[in-house]
Amino acid sequence: MQVQISYPELLAMEPRKRAHLINSVGGFKSVCLIGTADNEGNTNLAIFSSLVHIGANPPLICFIMRPDSVERHTLSNIVETGVYTINHINEKIYKQAHQTSARYAKSISEFDAAGLTKEYKNDFTAPFVKESTIQLAVEFRQRIDLSINNTTMVIGEIKELFYSSDCLNEDGYLDIEKAGTITCSGLDSYHTTKRLQRLDYAKP
Amino acid sequence: MQVQISYPELLAMEPRKRAHLINSVGGFKSVCLIGTADNEGNTNLAIFSSLVHIGANPPLICFIMRPDSVERHTLSNIVETGVYTINHINEKIYKQAHQTSARYAKSISEFDAAGLTKEYKNDFTAPFVKESTIQLAVEFRQRIDLSINNTTMVIGEIKELFYSSDCLNEDGYLDIEKAGTITCSGLDSYHTTKRLQRLDYAKP
Repeated sequence: MQVQISYPELLAMEPRKRAHLINSVGGFKSVCLIGTADNEGNTNLAIFSSLVHIGANPPLICFIMRPDSVERHTLSNIVETGVYTINHINEKIYKQAHQTSARYAKSISEFDAAGLTKEYKNDFTAPFVKESTIQLAVEFRQRIDLSINNTTMVIGEIKELFYSSDCLNEDGYLDIEKAGTITCSGLDSYHTTKRLQRLDYAKP
Repeated sequence: MQVQISYPELLAMEPRKRAHLINSVGGFKSVCLIGTADNEGNTNLAIFSSLVHIGANPPLICFIMRPDSVERHTLSNIVETGVYTINHINEKIYKQAHQTSARYAKSISEFDAAGLTKEYKNDFTAPFVKESTIQLAVEFRQRIDLSINNTTMVIGEIKELFYSSDCLNEDGYLDIEKAGTITCSGLDSYHTTKRLQRLDYAKP
């Protein structure tokens, strides 16, 4: 039976409950680990579920962060060094990935705290997650502060892309399901996927 | 075997191929149908895979649109009337949902062209998709033009929420997998999900 939550009911909800609800209603989300370092090489790793592709030419990707959240080291490191990594999460590491959302002091690297392995490649100064099968090297492009609710949108350009060779289709589609990438819903639910179908380009 | 695509290789890719690739690397996406009408009541329905939750208090959700895309009627209708609906996609309607991405003239409603049913509720002037099990009534809040690549971010506030009564958990988490909501990857791949687990709030 379909039921309804009205606006007054939404606003009257207990905040944590509303956070669960509103985080669920946007649908399944991209969930990934963002790796950064400060200029001293101290590393940080944080899970984000607000990643969105915003264009292919140039190849841009953005995410939204709450300034008061545990991810604040991510933002300061990105602004400080201009680079970060985006690492897909798979079934083998989703618990470790979730653990990076705990509120650690800046002196503690979430790589160590959560049990994930730092990986450095091609002189890129931000750390990748070795256990991730799809990894992006990203260069910071723009920060947009959203005055409507004091969140921040961080836009970056994809500079390099690492993936399993058997996952790239002829037409450029990267089979992230084959690569083991998972998705999430709400604040804490993780899901594997099963392809229904790829559909042809739609014409009237 | 892990392989690498460098920045020059990315830029040199055939544009359609790069679009497939860059749309894939951001991970699984929220995919939904956005329903609008103009002031004359002409309806429009378009599929979007760039939906992101940006905050729970107030309950805000945003999506990104390309101004040159088929979704342009969506934006003009939203600006004209100030309201729209967000409708989750399930296994029964993903083909119809995908079909709304075809480039129809403004005089043609994608509801009719794709074979989906308009539904009106509670004096809300934007049409819902009757076949969707989770539906949001949204009020337009802000438009942010992203100069970096001429896309537009549309921010709205969730005013009402419709869902199956058996999908809402005690803690506010809406079980969108149980509701049949699907996810997508790339430009054209649709996937059902299977829950691994909900995890506890992470503490150091």
